[in-house]
Amino acid sequence: MASALISRQLALCLQKNLWLGSTGCRYVSKAAAKTQVEFDYDGPLMKTTVPGPRSQELTKQLGDIQNVGAVNFFCNYEESRGNYLVDVDGNRMLDIYTQISSIPIGYNHPALLKLMANPNNLSTIVNRPALGILPPENFPEKVTESLLSVAPTGMTRVQTMACGSCSNENAFKSIFIWYRNKERGHNTPSEEDMSSCMINQAPGCPDLSILSFTGAFHGRTLGCLATTHSKVIHKLDVPSFDWPIAPFPRLKYPLEEFSRENAQEEARCLEEVEDLIVKWRQKGKPVAGIIIEPIQAEGGDNHASPDFFRSLRSIARKHGCAFHVDEIQTGGGCTGKFWAHEYWGMDDPADIVSFSKKLLTGGYYQKEELQADKPYRIFNTWMGDPSKNLLLVEVLNVIRRENLLEEVARSGKALLNGLYELQAQYPGLLSRARGQGTFCAIDVKDSATRDRLLLQARDKGVLLGGCGDVSIRFRPALVFKEYHVHIFLNIFNDILALNK
Amino acid sequence: MASALISRQLALCLQKNLWLGSTGCRYVSKAAAKTQVEFDYDGPLMKTTVPGPRSQELTKQLGDIQNVGAVNFFCNYEESRGNYLVDVDGNRMLDIYTQISSIPIGYNHPALLKLMANPNNLSTIVNRPALGILPPENFPEKVTESLLSVAPTGMTRVQTMACGSCSNENAFKSIFIWYRNKERGHNTPSEEDMSSCMINQAPGCPDLSILSFTGAFHGRTLGCLATTHSKVIHKLDVPSFDWPIAPFPRLKYPLEEFSRENAQEEARCLEEVEDLIVKWRQKGKPVAGIIIEPIQAEGGDNHASPDFFRSLRSIARKHGCAFHVDEIQTGGGCTGKFWAHEYWGMDDPADIVSFSKKLLTGGYYQKEELQADKPYRIFNTWMGDPSKNLLLVEVLNVIRRENLLEEVARSGKALLNGLYELQAQYPGLLSRARGQGTFCAIDVKDSATRDRLLLQARDKGVLLGGCGDVSIRFRPALVFKEYHVHIFLNIFNDILALNK
Repeated sequence: MASALISRQLALCLQKNLWLGSTGCRYVSKAAAKTQVEFDYDGPLMKTTVPGPRSQELTKQLGDIQNVGAVNFFCNYEESRGNYLVDVDGNRMLDIYTQISSIPIGYNHPALLKLMANPNNLSTIVNRPALGILPPENFPEKVTESLLSVAPTGMTRVQTMACGSCSNENAFKSIFIWYRNKERGHNTPSEEDMSSCMINQAPGCPDLSILSFTGAFHGRTLGCLATTHSKVIHKLDVPSFDWPIAPFPRLKYPLEEFSRENAQEEARCLEEVEDLIVKWRQKGKPVAGIIIEPIQAEGGDNHASPDFFRSLRSIARKHGCAFHVDEIQTGGGCTGKFWAHEYWGMDDPADIVSFSKKLLTGGYYQKEELQADKPYRIFNTWMGDPSKNLLLVEVLNVIRRENLLEEVARSGKALLNGLYELQAQYPGLLSRARGQGTFCAIDVKDSATRDRLLLQARDKGVLLGGCGDVSIRFRPALVFKEYHVHIFLNIFNDILALNK
Repeated sequence: MASALISRQLALCLQKNLWLGSTGCRYVSKAAAKTQVEFDYDGPLMKTTVPGPRSQELTKQLGDIQNVGAVNFFCNYEESRGNYLVDVDGNRMLDIYTQISSIPIGYNHPALLKLMANPNNLSTIVNRPALGILPPENFPEKVTESLLSVAPTGMTRVQTMACGSCSNENAFKSIFIWYRNKERGHNTPSEEDMSSCMINQAPGCPDLSILSFTGAFHGRTLGCLATTHSKVIHKLDVPSFDWPIAPFPRLKYPLEEFSRENAQEEARCLEEVEDLIVKWRQKGKPVAGIIIEPIQAEGGDNHASPDFFRSLRSIARKHGCAFHVDEIQTGGGCTGKFWAHEYWGMDDPADIVSFSKKLLTGGYYQKEELQADKPYRIFNTWMGDPSKNLLLVEVLNVIRRENLLEEVARSGKALLNGLYELQAQYPGLLSRARGQGTFCAIDVKDSATRDRLLLQARDKGVLLGGCGDVSIRFRPALVFKEYHVHIFLNIFNDILALNK
């Protein structure tokens, strides 16, 4: 695909839209040309500070109905396009957070608009079925065209669910069912199993556990929350399970300078995993499964090496625990591969892979032996939403047609290189630039500065998200191209200069 | 609204479509005329047994991807209309189960098709926002027009969620947060609270409990499942919480003959509730909330008197427990009132009311003091789905415009009277006819006979659902009119005659 540098003149012209304040233009990044005619704006365009007056008015209205402490601003989704989110005050922002990483191919992609304008698809939207008992005629076809066409290696079975938390909750149940049947040696429960489970007691409701990691985020319903350990605000005051929590490696950057220390750190964490598995078995709460994110997102964009994950997968196998890879935030192409676990280079990467967000529907893939042995064990009224499958088919078509994984690899490289340059330029402010594809992050010297940078970026027309204590995470859509990277880098550089 | 008896001739003409077998026509029920031109078929029309060959072929296909043990048949939702579900073999069935009670105004209602064909609404479907941080401009308006317009007495606050289980899970969290802040006397957690919660331990993850009832169904994620006690298949092999379970009254029918016994039974259950609250407090696992369905659905359509619920509400208040009414199956008009708890006649019926299914979006109403004190405590990526709110606004318009609650009351009366007649006619086969609105049920002499009746009804073009051990539950859409009742009664009577 042609990708030429645009003239200095065009770069400046683009920048005109960007610089709203009186700060001088600190040009650091050469913008690449737009590669084709796209449904996208040319750059940010800010009319007010954010939230503007209309957003403030609506926040007040909604405040009579809900807690609005988390509301950033109100959006005009009709006017949003591609990588740009438009708010109700007419501000147009380059969106590098994309609804917490859940807009796969940008706003109002023409292919999706066309799909949903097709009268043949109306019925799917207005008649939501109970998929587990009465699926629509095209359901096997749409699941095959969508989810199965991107199934992780070794997985031929997939279960849709309504959201990420429900996906992990039901994946846990699949793991528990599989583990208990394995313990029994058959799948016929005893009378005692059946009577005790009805009153929440063992052996019918067994004391099994899921091993998770410090800094993990796997959702906020009570089962998921017992494996989430990223922030106090998620967990405080909610009853939980006594399940084991292993340390997730804290790698030192730059990786090439700390390879020995990082290998030691990973070995320490793996050893702790094995110790915990043994300890919890002795406590009478055997570890039925291990859940992990390929990159811990909410917890601070924490990475580990492919070796770490390969060893962990072996430990799971050795101890008879299911290995559940949570790709809810990493899945869907943002790392430059469709699944982040592809970087591990394994034929048998996992027993369960859960997804949501960019996949538009929640759900999980599973190996055949992990599938519940009887109907109605994994079940609820909706079991997903076929209208989301329909959208996903088209999203995947666009990803293939527009070679978006290659674009992500390219943009990701430009983004990470830009972050490296910025951290070299502002060593007291930035550190630990890291990432795969556009799934990048960088640390800021402290939490207050990080939060201030996020707000300043927003007022300059760039939407970013935080994660962990001091990190900024980059979660653009897959249509985030090299020239968007440069628009961002220029604005960000300008803001950093204000915060030296 | 005009509602005249149609001629014997038309009734017979309708029946022609119904009787497929060679059994004689046992006419018991006078059909009422269709009251207006409607988007509905005239009656069932069966071409094959169910599942037919095409359904069997698709089930085999889907079987390569998922457990299909629960699949009844595949549907042609495009051809389905009003009260009739059409399958992929061209069979047209009167649907009295409606996707486990989740189709509010029938299939392909013209008002919903029109709404979704409007290009202005496309953006809502293709750009799913993270509602908690970046709501669309029309969100306060749409929530006000939809959910708030039918808010239970005393409730002005509502939180949307993606499904029923997520609604209850998050409602529980709201309850726990509220309870702990009440215990503290303020909402500032201690250092110990904050550090212990990150590793799933008390006091940060406190040993609080939710009291539920035998036979209850509140969902299948791990928190909800700890309050669900209707069937072994839901609970077996899944770890749970040691939370108290009180007996739900088992009323004897006919109610008027057993008023003294039933009052005693309810008093016994209430006493047990208080005993359990005291006992669990002594165990160090205080009851933060009580959850109950106004009519236990999945558990067997178990009713209790308004007095029972009023007393229970008082007990909750007395002991400082939140009172959570789960209207996921009962809400939305099927009892003849929008909420089943309206039959209790209370100004302050609940602290939390959860919903899903017919409301199209999940969520819960709460009293102001139950709302989490800080943002991000009740939060997830999607927090519901605005495209469902859009549909709900129109569903409520149709309910009002077509006076559907009155229709439900009328049809429900006809249905229950018909069931009374049938159980009088087949005393060895049927008993305990009961219901409110069209939310009716009847018991069959044993489980095997019940299951056989359901299949025979399906082959004659009537879709019904089972619940509990021996019950048949009726869950038609709100557009189920008196003449649909008579179509059903005629077919059902015919089947009963085969099973005498």
